[in-house]
Amino acid sequence: MSLPSHGANPHYFVQAMGLQLPEHAIDFSENVNPLGVPRVVRDRWNQYIEAITTYPDPHASQLREKLANDLNVSIDQLIVGNGAAELILLIANYFRKKRVLIVEPTFSEYRDACLTYDCEIIRYQLLQESSWDIQVESLLEAINGVDILFLCHPNNPTGTTIERSTLIQVFSRAREKNVTVIIDEAFYDFCTENVSVIPYIEEFHNLVVLRSLTKMYAIPSLRLGYVVARKEFVSELKKFQQPWSVNGMAQQVGLDCISDEEHAIDTKTFIREERKRMFKLLSDIGYEVSPSVVNFYLLKPKGTNEDLTPLITFLIRNGVIPRHTYNFLGLEGKYIRLAIKTRQDNDLLLSVLERWSQRP
Amino acid sequence: MSLPSHGANPHYFVQAMGLQLPEHAIDFSENVNPLGVPRVVRDRWNQYIEAITTYPDPHASQLREKLANDLNVSIDQLIVGNGAAELILLIANYFRKKRVLIVEPTFSEYRDACLTYDCEIIRYQLLQESSWDIQVESLLEAINGVDILFLCHPNNPTGTTIERSTLIQVFSRAREKNVTVIIDEAFYDFCTENVSVIPYIEEFHNLVVLRSLTKMYAIPSLRLGYVVARKEFVSELKKFQQPWSVNGMAQQVGLDCISDEEHAIDTKTFIREERKRMFKLLSDIGYEVSPSVVNFYLLKPKGTNEDLTPLITFLIRNGVIPRHTYNFLGLEGKYIRLAIKTRQDNDLLLSVLERWSQRP
Repeated sequence: MSLPSHGANPHYFVQAMGLQLPEHAIDFSENVNPLGVPRVVRDRWNQYIEAITTYPDPHASQLREKLANDLNVSIDQLIVGNGAAELILLIANYFRKKRVLIVEPTFSEYRDACLTYDCEIIRYQLLQESSWDIQVESLLEAINGVDILFLCHPNNPTGTTIERSTLIQVFSRAREKNVTVIIDEAFYDFCTENVSVIPYIEEFHNLVVLRSLTKMYAIPSLRLGYVVARKEFVSELKKFQQPWSVNGMAQQVGLDCISDEEHAIDTKTFIREERKRMFKLLSDIGYEVSPSVVNFYLLKPKGTNEDLTPLITFLIRNGVIPRHTYNFLGLEGKYIRLAIKTRQDNDLLLSVLERWSQRP
Repeated sequence: MSLPSHGANPHYFVQAMGLQLPEHAIDFSENVNPLGVPRVVRDRWNQYIEAITTYPDPHASQLREKLANDLNVSIDQLIVGNGAAELILLIANYFRKKRVLIVEPTFSEYRDACLTYDCEIIRYQLLQESSWDIQVESLLEAINGVDILFLCHPNNPTGTTIERSTLIQVFSRAREKNVTVIIDEAFYDFCTENVSVIPYIEEFHNLVVLRSLTKMYAIPSLRLGYVVARKEFVSELKKFQQPWSVNGMAQQVGLDCISDEEHAIDTKTFIREERKRMFKLLSDIGYEVSPSVVNFYLLKPKGTNEDLTPLITFLIRNGVIPRHTYNFLGLEGKYIRLAIKTRQDNDLLLSVLERWSQRP
């Protein structure tokens, strides 16, 4: 059995590793908000059942209206999807057989979706030695020969961001060369600093921003994401979207979630403090991490550069499920990715990792 | 504003007709079970919230296992989709640019999906004069030149079925000519008689059966459908399916629904009796209907063959929302489609239709 290409659903991963899922296992491979769903969802849960007998709004009008208003864009610049994953496939379908530049290591779905639609993939590799940052000249060079660029920002799995001035250089070159730039902001709202590039869409008409609502609001089961772009591009994506793509529960719950601004603020603060605490303690017990600004990070024992299967096995046996990195290009299993979870869960992780460092 | 191409979401239709949606309007354009969701869904509703914070099983394994067991097929012959609509688009994507034969009038999504993927569409027209039945020789002739045939059975919007022996002639010719036959059984389980062709998949390897779980179990908001076919065809469809396509609520609720066999039996009986009652009374007050065996039917004033916009307007103003037939090829607005709903709702429909017949 080959390893699953995504996190979450830990039983598939553990089974593929030839192990057994312990009864009490904590899934550090799933990057959702450790504070859970906003209170409003629990409060309104019993109302949601009344709407399940009717078809979803095929245009997700209410949700798009609220988002457009919050983001200060027009409603026809927005398309809502059955999770960001649907939107990535719609983008790949639109750019069928084109040349795609992907900044790696990153979310494997860009590559997988583009390969499904026979794109030619060009890889730009970030390196730990450069703190997973872009070398702007070489990236600008690479942009010259492609039709589309995928850049995850903050990046999954490193959790790192890129200087705004560098991004603007990239957008300018892309505009000049008529290259579409997809910025995946699936995790932007875990970052205390506002790193979104949505305000640049007006200036750079080839800029497309992808967002997810399932991470911050802890509703990955329901599937909900959106794209903000110029309206002509949104129309092109809609042509390939199925009717009633976004289920009614996702639309209703999503609308309630984004109305709860406090939940996002509390989460950002919690994540920042807990990440700071963890990074200090992890360093103390012999691990190095990527300089993440969000709710997950890459980790390896300090100074090592080897396959971490033994560590993964130890973690699983002790009830901690990490995300393997075998399908992240440039990582190839020499790191693991871990989510920031509740303080109690993080403490368990620390104690297991400490036992690993102190093994004879 | 052009008319919506599907039923449900009546505000879009009413708005496009230049009318206002009355406060108390009953949506006869939506073909879902009038008895509502199975009791088990209400009983377990509060448990469902606990799972929304985790990713859906990307393989829908539990649901597929239960379905495979119930249908007596192997699990790799099944693919679950984000509603049948996703599966229709996956099929169209697979048959991109091929020649498609569609038996009309029927669900417009086959044509729309195939046009999205640049297929050439060949139309086979059913006629009221032949009770919406197939003329088998001419259909067999039409099969000779195509790659794929879409046949909705029982058919939407007529609610009619085709003799088993005729279907077998069609399957045989299709096998001989290597034509894939898609039988859409979205409404098969409202029919008292067992009309499913799933048992023929083993014999006719080009036979693909499409099913929906949202009509019988009144969960269209959640989106849930599946395809049963030979495993090689299922693998081909999976290549184009997005990860986590089927949300977790749909998987859980769907599994609970199909375990409640009594609900389906009660529904079938109710629909049969209520349809019989309605057809008698509708005839008495001057209307003719298609010989439907399911939970909806075509209707027009007896002996007429004209655009029914005036009747539609009258119905809407009186709180009854019909399904227009302007985008059903061969109907072009000369019929309306109506769902069988609760006895109380159906009585309201009868009284409004009677007033229309008796107008001066």
